[in-house]
Parts: sequence; C-alpha cells; structure tokens
Amino acid sequence: MSEPTELFLRACMGLPVTRTPVWMMRQAGRYLPQYRAVRGKVSFLELCKTPDLACEVTLQPIRELGVDAAILFSDILVPVEAMGMALRFTEEHGPELPSPLRSAADVDKLRVVDADDELGFVMAAVRKISAALPAEVPLIGFSGAPFTLATYMVEGGTSKNFIETKKMMWGDPATARRLMDRIADQVIGYMVAQARAGCRALQLFDTWAGILAPSDFDVWARPFAMRVLAEVRAAAPGVPLVYFVNGSGAILERLRGMGADMIGIDWKQDLAEARTRLGPALAVQGNLDPVALFAPVAEVEARVKAILEANRKQPGHVFNLGHGVLPGTPVESVKAMVAAVKQYG
Amino acid sequence: MSEPTELFLRACMGLPVTRTPVWMMRQAGRYLPQYRAVRGKVSFLELCKTPDLACEVTLQPIRELGVDAAILFSDILVPVEAMGMALRFTEEHGPELPSPLRSAADVDKLRVVDADDELGFVMAAVRKISAALPAEVPLIGFSGAPFTLATYMVEGGTSKNFIETKKMMWGDPATARRLMDRIADQVIGYMVAQARAGCRALQLFDTWAGILAPSDFDVWARPFAMRVLAEVRAAAPGVPLVYFVNGSGAILERLRGMGADMIGIDWKQDLAEARTRLGPALAVQGNLDPVALFAPVAEVEARVKAILEANRKQPGHVFNLGHGVLPGTPVESVKAMVAAVKQYG
Repeated sequence: MSEPTELFLRACMGLPVTRTPVWMMRQAGRYLPQYRAVRGKVSFLELCKTPDLACEVTLQPIRELGVDAAILFSDILVPVEAMGMALRFTEEHGPELPSPLRSAADVDKLRVVDADDELGFVMAAVRKISAALPAEVPLIGFSGAPFTLATYMVEGGTSKNFIETKKMMWGDPATARRLMDRIADQVIGYMVAQARAGCRALQLFDTWAGILAPSDFDVWARPFAMRVLAEVRAAAPGVPLVYFVNGSGAILERLRGMGADMIGIDWKQDLAEARTRLGPALAVQGNLDPVALFAPVAEVEARVKAILEANRKQPGHVFNLGHGVLPGTPVESVKAMVAAVKQYG
Repeated sequence: MSEPTELFLRACMGLPVTRTPVWMMRQAGRYLPQYRAVRGKVSFLELCKTPDLACEVTLQPIRELGVDAAILFSDILVPVEAMGMALRFTEEHGPELPSPLRSAADVDKLRVVDADDELGFVMAAVRKISAALPAEVPLIGFSGAPFTLATYMVEGGTSKNFIETKKMMWGDPATARRLMDRIADQVIGYMVAQARAGCRALQLFDTWAGILAPSDFDVWARPFAMRVLAEVRAAAPGVPLVYFVNGSGAILERLRGMGADMIGIDWKQDLAEARTRLGPALAVQGNLDPVALFAPVAEVEARVKAILEANRKQPGHVFNLGHGVLPGTPVESVKAMVAAVKQYG
C-alpha cells in the first residue's frame, strides 16, 4: 500500500506531517447550533438511523470548523440495539436499556447480526458522507469496545459504580466471558463493514475500561479489545486503528502491543509522559481538557501550544480533546483551538 | 519521640509491623445497620454536630469489624459551613451549597474561624472517641484539601465536569488563588485542632484533584495541599499525614515530596507499580476495589491476598479500599476482608 497523503491518516501511522492534524471527539453535537436545528426535528435515535441526517450533522463541523477528519455521527449503543436489546434515550438520563442482561439466558438471547443488513442505515450514512467529504478529510468510523458496551448492557444504562457488571464478571465469569465474546463478534463485523463502506480509520472506544483495577483490565477489557483489533486489522488492512480509554493514566504500559496504531489520551495525563510510557511504536491522540474551551481564548491558545510543543520531538500526534466536547462549549473557542493548531501545529 | 506501637501508626511511618493494619474509608456509614439505626433519628448534619452520636457511629465499625484504626465521623464540608456557606444534604443530590462562590466579593465574605470555638463540636467528638477507643486503635482525623473543597464551594455541590471551578481558575486566577489560600488557612487550623484534641493521624482528602490536567494539578492542587501538610506538620509533629487523590494514576510522581507520610491509592492502579513510581520514602494505603466487596467471599479473599503479596517486599502498607465503602455493601464481605487481612497480612 502507498503512503496516504491525508494529515490525519499519516499522523495515525506515525508518518511525518507538514502540520499536526486536529479533530474533536463528539465534534458533531449539541454545542453546534446547526446540530441543534436538525436534532430539534427528530429524536436522537432517528437521527442516527436516517442516513441523510446523519450525513448532514457529520459534515457540519467540517464546514463550520475546518477540522482534518470527520467522524461518523452515531452512538456506541446502535449495534447493541441491533443485537436485540431495547434502547431509548432521554434528555435526563441519557441511554436506557430497560431489560438489562443479568443471566446466562439473557446473554444467550443476544444475536450477532449482519452489519450490512441490519445496520445498513449506518453503512448508507458512511457511503453518503464519504462521497460528500472533501478529498483531504477522511471519515473515521467507530464502535464501543466489548467491555464498555457490556457495562451498558448489564447496568441498563450509564453507571456510577458498575456494581452489576462486576458482580457478573466475578460471580459468573463464564457468562460474562460469553457476553464479551458475543459483543466482540458483533463489533468486529460492524467495524469491518464500516471500513468496507468507506471509513478510512476506525476508533474503538473503551471509555469505561479505566474504572477497572489493572488486573481486571487484563482479564475483562484488554483481551476482547485485542481480538477486535486483530480481526478488524486482518479484514481491513491499511485502515489505522485507534484505541481510547478514559482514565488510562495507571495502565498505559498495558496498552502497548494491543494492536492499535494510535492511543487516545485523556486530559488527566501529561501527553509527553504518556508517550514515553507508551513507547515509540504508538501514535497518540489528544489531549486538551474539554473544559479548557470554557476558558478565555488566550488560555485556550496557550494550552494548545503547550500540547503541540510537548509533541514536537516525534511524529504521530493527532490533536484532539481528552474526551468529548461538552454541550454548552462556545463555538468561538473551538474555532480558536482549531486555528491555533493550524497556526502552531 | 519514641516509636509508636500501634500497627496503623507504624505502617504510616514505614516502620516494620507484625501484621498489615486494615481500616476502610467511610467505614462508619450506610452499609452498617447500626449506623442506619442512629441515622434514622437525626439528619446527616445533626449527626456530624452531635458529639455523642458522632462518637457512637465512629465506634461502630471498631466493635463490629475489628479494624485497626477509627476515623472521625464527619463530612469534608463541615468546615465549609463554618466558613459561612449555607449547606444542606439531600438523599437525592448529596451536598448542596445553594449560594456557590462565583466572584471575588463572594470569596471575600468567607471567614476563617477558630476551629476549637466554631467547630468545637468536632473537637468534642474527637475527645469522646479518643477516650472510648481501645488503646491499640488510633483515631484518624481528616479534612478536605483546598482544591477539593473549592470545587464544592464554586460548583454548589458535586459536579460532573467542574466547569465553574475551572472557569474561575483560568478566567480569574487571582480570585481562585485567594479562595484556595483562605480554605488552606481554615484547613490548617482545623486539622491542627483535631490533632490537639486527640487525633493520632490526619488524612487530607483531595478526592477531586485527579480530574485536573497534571499542569493544573501542579498549580491548583499541589501547592495548596503542600502548604497544609507543611503547616500541620510543624504544629503537630509526630502525627502521620496521609494524602489521598482519587484517580492519581497519571500523577503519582507528582505526589513525591509533598510532605505526606503515606499516599492513599485508588483501586484503578496496581499497588506494586504505584509504590515503584512513588519511591521508597512513601508508605501506601489501599487499594481493594470497593465493588469487590459485592463479589463472592472467595473472590474477596483472593483479592486481599494478592494486594498483601504485592506489598510483602517493603514495610509501609495500610490495607484499605481504593475509595469509600459503598452503601449496600454486604457486611459479611467486609468481615471476610478484615479476617483475610488479619490472617494473611
């Protein structure tokens, strides 16, 4: 395969770049007035399932902010619904799965679906977005990782302490393993289908894996994420793979050798220290504190420069926030951030 | 000063022990039926402010569980109320400060009170508890650290993203610094008074400092906590000082040289790795996942043993949870944990 020319793809692969690329997790979202205008007409899940609208909101930050990558507008729970679990989103509580999995029988009812068929609306959105994007802006596909998806499926939504998930892991490990494996099968098919439909890179979100003790991460998150990364790699060679854990500061060394090209780093870490601990083989993505975008613009610019400076020494840095952009974030600050990366990166 | 004989105090100081000592953060609390019986009669704040009752619930886990240290029953926001802020606790939302600090004028209204006078109920509880405790069980006093207390005072309660706190830090740093300094003055007086009233060790809870970028930790948490530790040390020599940050996995090296004797380690870290990163001068406290107490007893015992084994090589380990014990935790599992530490520690 020849080397890509797109800044984002080059940085993912650790190749030299003329400028550090920039995008933001959740860059298509509530902080953008254009997004709220679309979202005002349909429910969140309808938006995910309507390719024209998913395409429209995916493109908004490209037009409005000039970021260097697009990320598919969707939700990590979309494939979970396809596996047979009821799902709804409320303004107050976020995602709710009213029939959480608590037993082997519950897990055995889960289906692994053909992503091109039962998640065809996602692939249709990917094709539309890919056709509409400027040539230099690649589309990133994504999925939740097995452990992180399992927490929603077992807890029935977001959680504070993840008691039910851990009770299953430790009290009925065979069932928990079967659950993680079945999710992994679905995630692999889903991510490979996204790549075949046009995604140029794929990010695996293991958002909640940082709430595990490291010895549990080794058993309940790492191996299942590794299987996903390996099988997606085999089926979609040349597509850079990104792995993100929120709160990975204590387990960075464990993220080496997992099979990702790039590790997303949350804002609670020093990015230069994180690179040292990860080793030279991995690119990094991050890691401005999302709340920094509520600071005065001069502060935003100073923080962008500091992160860029800390990464001057070696290629393989994609500028991003250390977590998703927050609702209420001033769009002007986001623009100042992107401008600062483009000026100093 | 001669060496203490109490296991907990010896471990805090890195001295050899005949057995690893054990206690639990929030060991006096809702998971204990005896606590719920007392709490059923009075509000949470009344319980904190009534020395007889605070003494009673502080002693409950000593009698029921046989742990090696007692911790004063109180709340980190008790001195905040004394500084002049309205405070209430609700079942649904936890602590609420209905008039949060948002301006220099707000901060200037805060008082620094004489802890023996306006927080005299705490010192009365400390004296009662100290008189009632078995000779071999020391009483631990505590306070919130300046940054962590500031988050409650600026946000008006618990927070998800700490936007208002960070806006003040970055948008009006002079006011934020004045706030942290005033809190530090109060915390110093409060902790010194606790030591003089009978506390044999003091823990400084910087629970939320782990949500800061490391560069912000260096500016907004570390120096204020260091001043507290230094001034308390000077005024109460010989009293071991413990510093705890939840989510410190990315900043452990920054906790060296802060002036604490022992660092509390959350459960999201490997304790042996944490000791290596902290260096030989610091004792450690931790770090069983609080949710592990919901696992089968055999699993609890295996995890206790693994943590103890990882700390065999050097003295200076106090067994604890990696965060406070959760409501709903089975008391039988807590007893199994304590028994396992006493058998294998």
